Amino acid sequence: MGIVLGDNQYGKAETRVVWVIRDGPRHDLRDLNVSISLTGDLAATHLTGDNAQVLPTDSQKNTVYAFAKRHGVDQIEDFGLLLARHFVTSQPSITRARVDIEQYAWQRLGPHSFQRAGAEVRTASVTVDGDATRVVSGLTGLVLLNSTDSEFAGFVRDPYTTLPEAHDRILATAVDARWRHAGPVGAGPAADGTGGWADSHNRVRAALVAGFVETYSRSLQQTLYAMGERVLRECAGIVEIRLSLPNKHHLLVDLTPFGLDNPGEVFVATDRPYGLIEGMVRRDDAPTAKGAS
Amino acid sequence: MGIVLGDNQYGKAETRVVWVIRDGPRHDLRDLNVSISLTGDLAATHLTGDNAQVLPTDSQKNTVYAFAKRHGVDQIEDFGLLLARHFVTSQPSITRARVDIEQYAWQRLGPHSFQRAGAEVRTASVTVDGDATRVVSGLTGLVLLNSTDSEFAGFVRDPYTTLPEAHDRILATAVDARWRHAGPVGAGPAADGTGGWADSHNRVRAALVAGFVETYSRSLQQTLYAMGERVLRECAGIVEIRLSLPNKHHLLVDLTPFGLDNPGEVFVATDRPYGLIEGMVRRDDAPTAKGAS
Amino acid sequence: MGIVLGDNQYGKAETRVVWVIRDGPRHDLRDLNVSISLTGDLAATHLTGDNAQVLPTDSQKNTVYAFAKRHGVDQIEDFGLLLARHFVTSQPSITRARVDIEQYAWQRLGPHSFQRAGAEVRTASVTVDGDATRVVSGLTGLVLLNSTDSEFAGFVRDPYTTLPEAHDRILATAVDARWRHAGPVGAGPAADGTGGWADSHNRVRAALVAGFVETYSRSLQQTLYAMGERVLRECAGIVEIRLSLPNKHHLLVDLTPFGLDNPGEVFVATDRPYGLIEGMVRRDDAPTAKGAS
Amino acid sequence: MGIVLGDNQYGKAETRVVWVIRDGPRHDLRDLNVSISLTGDLAATHLTGDNAQVLPTDSQKNTVYAFAKRHGVDQIEDFGLLLARHFVTSQPSITRARVDIEQYAWQRLGPHSFQRAGAEVRTASVTVDGDATRVVSGLTGLVLLNSTDSEFAGFVRDPYTTLPEAHDRILATAVDARWRHAGPVGAGPAADGTGGWADSHNRVRAALVAGFVETYSRSLQQTLYAMGERVLRECAGIVEIRLSLPNKHHLLVDLTPFGLDNPGEVFVATDRPYGLIEGMVRRDDAPTAKGAS
Repeated sequence: MGIVLGDNQYGKAETRVVWVIRDGPRHDLRDLNVSISLTGDLAATHLTGDNAQVLPTDSQKNTVYAFAKRHGVDQIEDFGLLLARHFVTSQPSITRARVDIEQYAWQRLGPHSFQRAGAEVRTASVTVDGDATRVVSGLTGLVLLNSTDSEFAGFVRDPYTTLPEAHDRILATAVDARWRHAGPVGAGPAADGTGGWADSHNRVRAALVAGFVETYSRSLQQTLYAMGERVLRECAGIVEIRLSLPNKHHLLVDLTPFGLDNPGEVFVATDRPYGLIEGMVRRDDAPTAKGAS
Repeated sequence: MGIVLGDNQYGKAETRVVWVIRDGPRHDLRDLNVSISLTGDLAATHLTGDNAQVLPTDSQKNTVYAFAKRHGVDQIEDFGLLLARHFVTSQPSITRARVDIEQYAWQRLGPHSFQRAGAEVRTASVTVDGDATRVVSGLTGLVLLNSTDSEFAGFVRDPYTTLPEAHDRILATAVDARWRHAGPVGAGPAADGTGGWADSHNRVRAALVAGFVETYSRSLQQTLYAMGERVLRECAGIVEIRLSLPNKHHLLVDLTPFGLDNPGEVFVATDRPYGLIEGMVRRDDAPTAKGAS
Repeated sequence: MGIVLGDNQYGKAETRVVWVIRDGPRHDLRDLNVSISLTGDLAATHLTGDNAQVLPTDSQKNTVYAFAKRHGVDQIEDFGLLLARHFVTSQPSITRARVDIEQYAWQRLGPHSFQRAGAEVRTASVTVDGDATRVVSGLTGLVLLNSTDSEFAGFVRDPYTTLPEAHDRILATAVDARWRHAGPVGAGPAADGTGGWADSHNRVRAALVAGFVETYSRSLQQTLYAMGERVLRECAGIVEIRLSLPNKHHLLVDLTPFGLDNPGEVFVATDRPYGLIEGMVRRDDAPTAKGAS
Repeated sequence: MGIVLGDNQYGKAETRVVWVIRDGPRHDLRDLNVSISLTGDLAATHLTGDNAQVLPTDSQKNTVYAFAKRHGVDQIEDFGLLLARHFVTSQPSITRARVDIEQYAWQRLGPHSFQRAGAEVRTASVTVDGDATRVVSGLTGLVLLNSTDSEFAGFVRDPYTTLPEAHDRILATAVDARWRHAGPVGAGPAADGTGGWADSHNRVRAALVAGFVETYSRSLQQTLYAMGERVLRECAGIVEIRLSLPNKHHLLVDLTPFGLDNPGEVFVATDRPYGLIEGMVRRDDAPTAKGAS
């Protein structure tokens, strides 16, 4: 019985790069947080401290900056692909590279002036593993609330159940979504042939929001499925979507001690604990992808 | 030489209340974080644990909920005034009440559907001290960036100065602003007679943004003064504004080791350290207000 | 081609429970954060909003409280097992339960007085999946630093490499470790027959710390492996350990502009970006465990 | 009626410096977060962008690093005094400098190995204003809990009071304390002549803890006063202490629906809202200090 090195990876996390496009009086900008993780023949550094196969994480950071200048940043999926392919092709010891990118949105105020646009973040996770390429697009921090058309009833009542049925409640969540694209991914338009990554992102986002807004909800699970199903129905290029939806509970306050009724008006917004509803919706003919989460 | 109790205050902090206005098919909502702090004849509880003058912080929390139902929440300045006056007038031992309110913005998606609108927060600090009333309105979390029209040069060079002059840099900050209103504050329109607290807030905010966007900046101090000066110039009802502006440094990356120039394109967004520029702009005939910060 | 529900789970996250043991004048306490995630036949609620198979997350929270009273909390691994088995055995629709527990440490100050003991957190992840049971113990937030005996040299130099070799540097990390136990897990002493979960935890922790302190480090990967290898060598009951080690960079400040040398004395502690080194060390005869991360 | 610049200040915030003392095989270290704020004749930069009186915040950061090397860091109060005096004496336009320092504790593991010791932070705020010097020492993040010997009863019952009296409750808080020293402050031993800043800090901290642990509490206010009074009684060199104590509520869970009693055993640890109790305890012959908070 021996002791051995198992799965391992390393890289530079959270390189914050801002790229300003200044090819005219009207600037634009991209604001990214890039995390890189490399896998390969890395036993030597673990076992003996021999770093002959180790590209410093500092060099990975420099690569992010240099690629932003050399190639620009249009869509984060493409920028992630460029970076991931670079590490796998240029480093003999590296067989797999994963690049996770967060993009922070800015709203234009003027030719060279911008305002940070909220807490919503667009994401991409790109993995190049030998010849295989996977792109998972996503978003986080999209906080949605319906003030009615939500109930929760007919549930299991076990000996620890005290929750009353709710026939009109607030439903609120912070959407964390990640979706896989169909077919081979190219640097051009999106896999569904419509308009590339940005258009794909916008259409998925719109379907998620519409699914939340337009669903009369009997459970957050039902809303989750409705959101995911709508994305797949409306976006032909998407084969699978994973949703993680915290149930941000808003509890109705009992105002009867103060001689007041409270017909769905005054709520406490709670922090913890919270429900957490997680699920995947997919096409039944889509190949499952390991590691695409 | 004895040991005595000095200044003291107590209250319930961070009561999170959401009020849904559902008087028709089209709902609206207010999402607040309310903190209360009371001052008065509170020596007994400190010295002997006699709580006969102590209104529990739990009761203060209940008051926030009950007042949301009973009076509704239109403008946070008015809601703060209602609460602060309530504690001073109903509690014989309390001479001073301060109510701090944060309001989180939601953007409408449908008749009863909403999306959290970013990290920007509207604030109000209301103090009722005997007969005196002070209202300080504000905002935090407004992140602004100019990608050019900012320089920093001609500064002091002491033995510890290595900073090169910058003739074209990114200027970015997260605005934290608090402003005082002229004259006696009423529950109706704002002190400047135009349109109440909401209108006043919108006009101050617009002046802050315009001051940031339209100023060619030789220092963040200059931008700060321009923002404050513009608020006072455009909003007659405001007599004083305090601004706290972190200089969110974006450092130009040296790409020459990689054979690349970098004419203001690729930047590192840094977290710490950061410059912090704080200043007040006021009318020269405005009475100074202690404790209005 | 149809659209179908894929993997899904739900539960109550972050139930904060404090249990005070007061069977005499000398109290003790357990301070836990419990997250539950249930999997099973949950299609109906997703597809139609029929909640007849859904145990409310509120009931799960209540179960945590009631079990703390009924069974007490000695070791978090055992408490997790109790909870996970309860949901799988009492809920016909639930086939798999995962319970993640964080335990916050308190240091005794008196018979009934305590001080929170730092940011280090003990963790347990317990999964009951039909008849199979998995326990993964762990810790997070253990921040370690060596001020010497660390170097980083002999690494790959690609066109984006500017990092100088470091022959004497600070090595600092925040240990995040998770380890699997050998054999069938019982409620009594730990699988290695020595002294139960607490003893096992203490010995793993000591091995991790000793591995960090006593390794002359040529890379954080080498230190990672030394830490894991030491755990497996010294703790017979552990078959696998996963370590996630951020490289909390401390950069030597260039003081030459000020006429000062800096032989490893003055450093900047940086926040981002950071290296992230992740790896597993295991016994070569240990069965791999899916989902044990 | 004109618009004028009011109070203003600027500086570099959160410079993170680690100083390693390596004058032998047994190293030691200081881990600081230094924030500087300068006041003086700074109208020009605000009004016209003329920076001829502005020492860059980057230079302030460099000064922190260079002073750490040149003077070392023994006690943070002394390091703050060195820095504050430097800016006031070397910069003709600067009349007032405030230096706030946080010190993070590390526990020794070996000759050059350390472990971060919890969330407690030692603080110093040093202000040099012309010839006047003020030093305020402090600590934050000291989390304390008594599992009994705390009650809250006999309080005001207004129409919004529903809180039952508690005759045996958990009392928990996170101590934030700041204290002023008597007499002129020198670089040597502390003002009370005993053993310098470190000894003073240790004795104040011990008195705070003892005051919390040994007080039978009828209100957190009573505990606050007991803690402050004990500091002044036991530490002759301290003239005033300010305490800010959040009441970290632990609510007793109602287990009767599950057929269980709960005699002070199972509690929910809540996040928000929380009580906030703030007060000062001082010697009656101490001069009050403006701006010493």
